[in-house]
Parts: sequence; C-alpha cells; structure tokens
Amino acid sequence: MGGQFISFEGGEGGGKSTQLRRLAARLSAHGIDVVTTREPGGTPGAEDIRSLLVEGEPGRWDGRVEALLVNAARADHVARRIRPALADGKWVLCDRYVHSTLAYQGAARGLDDAALRQLHAFATGDLWPDLTIVLDVDPALGLARAAGRAGGEARFEGEPPAFHKAVRDRFLSFPDVTVVSGDAPVDDVSDAVWSVVAARFGL
Amino acid sequence: MGGQFISFEGGEGGGKSTQLRRLAARLSAHGIDVVTTREPGGTPGAEDIRSLLVEGEPGRWDGRVEALLVNAARADHVARRIRPALADGKWVLCDRYVHSTLAYQGAARGLDDAALRQLHAFATGDLWPDLTIVLDVDPALGLARAAGRAGGEARFEGEPPAFHKAVRDRFLSFPDVTVVSGDAPVDDVSDAVWSVVAARFGL
Repeated sequence: MGGQFISFEGGEGGGKSTQLRRLAARLSAHGIDVVTTREPGGTPGAEDIRSLLVEGEPGRWDGRVEALLVNAARADHVARRIRPALADGKWVLCDRYVHSTLAYQGAARGLDDAALRQLHAFATGDLWPDLTIVLDVDPALGLARAAGRAGGEARFEGEPPAFHKAVRDRFLSFPDVTVVSGDAPVDDVSDAVWSVVAARFGL
Repeated sequence: MGGQFISFEGGEGGGKSTQLRRLAARLSAHGIDVVTTREPGGTPGAEDIRSLLVEGEPGRWDGRVEALLVNAARADHVARRIRPALADGKWVLCDRYVHSTLAYQGAARGLDDAALRQLHAFATGDLWPDLTIVLDVDPALGLARAAGRAGGEARFEGEPPAFHKAVRDRFLSFPDVTVVSGDAPVDDVSDAVWSVVAARFGL
C-alpha cells in the first residue's frame, strides 16, 4: 500500500495531538513509515504564518483573511512536506487540515463553503485526506482542557460559545469524516481510532 | 465627485512612492482629502504579512504561497482601510495593488491569470482601482535604483533578469492601465502623472 493521508479534526481540547501520536506509534509498530505534522504549520514557512493566525486578539483578522492565511500555510505545507512524503510511500498524520477551514472560517465565520473549497483547490492542487477522524467533545469540556495548556496560542479559544457550537455542529455534519467520541478515557479513544484505521486500510 | 482609487504599479525602482507622494500633494492642493498607502501592507495586520513576503531568500515561498499571502494582506487592507476611506469620499493612492499580483505571481511565477483574478475577487469583493498608472523603467536601471535603498526588503530584487523582464512585459500589456515613463527627470514624470489624473477625473 502506498502513502496514506490521515487528518485529525475537531474543536479545541478534543485530544487530537495525543491521539495522533498514539496512532503514529501503532502504525510504526506495523512497520509503516509515518510522518506526523500539524496545521497551520508543518514547515518553517507555514509555522511563521501560524504565529500570525493563533496569536493576538480574536478580532485581529476577519474570516476572509484567516482563510487566505490558512491556505497560504497549507500551500507551503502540502508542496514541501505532505506531497513529498506521500510520494515516498510514507503515511502522513496531520493535526487539522481542510475540514478545520470549512468549520472555522466557513460555518463559524460565515464564509461560503464553495468558495473555501475553490481556495483549497488553488492552494493544494485539491489534495484531500484519505481518511479524516473527527474527535468530538462538548466545547465546554474541550475549552476547559485547552485552557490548561501553556502558551499564547489562544486566539480561537477566546471566541464565544456560539462560535464553538457552530464549529462542532459543522464537524459533525461532514459526510466524508468518521466521528470518534473524545469523551471516553484516552486508551478507549485510542482503541476506537485504531479500529477505524485498521478497518479502513485493512491492517 | 466621490472617493477615487488610484494605484501606482511597475517594477522595482520605477519611482512609484515618490510619484505617489507628489500626486497626493497636488490633489490635496485641489482640496481633495487623500489617503496614501501601500501593498503589501497598509494596515497593522497587512504590514505583519508584508514582512513574511519581502524578507528572506528569493526561494522562501513559491508563487502560490506568495499569491495567498498577498491576497490575505490585501483582504485586510481593503476591508479595514481602503473601502472605509472611499466610503468617506476620500481618494486612495496605493503603491502596488492587483496588477502587481498578476505581473509577479502570474507572469513571472507562472500562475494562471484567471485563478489569480478569482482569488482577488474572493479577497476584496472584486475591488479594482478607478485608475492604474504604471511607471515604466528598464529593469536594470530600476534595480540599480532599488539597490541604493536601505533595508532588508530585497527578496524580489534578488530574482534573475528574466523574472524582472517578465514582470515589465506584463505591466506593459494590461489594457486597463496608463503607462508613464519613469526614465525622465522626476519633475517631468510628476507632470505626466498629473496630466493623466487631471484628464481622467476632470481636475
């Protein structure tokens, strides 16, 4: 089997990065060469763009600017890291990708879904994941978890509850994602993620 | 007459910022309320994005990322500065705008013209200038002038001659611009610019 591209999606504090690391370890144990990465970011240039996006006040950028910055970072990430890794037969596990744009800048900031998909096609040559796992948690719980983390990357956490509800509802509505509850104990979530991946790719 | 939007375009070292300031002074002397600005930049957020674009090595970003970053900065600039000023009846003079994107990321970096126009429409609600003046100089002369300026904003100056020739040829080919030679003494160029503006707006 050639390289596969798996994205982890969901609101703040759903356990995406933990579950991504655990899945990477399990895939590695199966002899699969895995690249773990995140968005916005994943390359030196895209990480520079990330700083603009996740720092500062919630109102620093409107949705349109956010969408363009996210896609600028993604274009660099896809061209310089994700596509080369996939071409080498590696599996790429990415913390956030296009569904985050459709949920945050689309559903929550009100930008047109079709326009965002067109922007994605321009930025990436229309590269979509082979599998997208949404880790779903109640936003109040997720935000409480996220607030416990260090660092100044809190621009989105500062948005009001209605924003986070819109994000969650959109994540749950995508026809092309698999939703896994992030409420269970972390080992149980890992097992659920593994079941989805093993079934999808015949591992 | 309501607010008017005039962009100054052309390669490096063509005298855009000098001529923009001189035109602003002449319009002010006619009692017109003028806002002078530049791209990428013109708002605090867009100036942050500018730093990413104009600093570093020529190969720091590919054309696709540049186009997305330029449009991110432009979206902020148009929404927060240019449109509000025009709505107030002010005249906006901008050092670079959409034609630079079509010349640099389109002709010189090879991106599709129609895709760039679509991106512009998304970023700005399809705001085009009322008048665009291209200050044309031979790239060798322009680059020599630009090299005399201070600062680390030399990422585009570092591109090879073929790049700058493609940029110049594209600027000269737009049907919706007025070309003014930037080779003449600066006072003569100012007079030529003024003639164009006075004729276009009946001043």
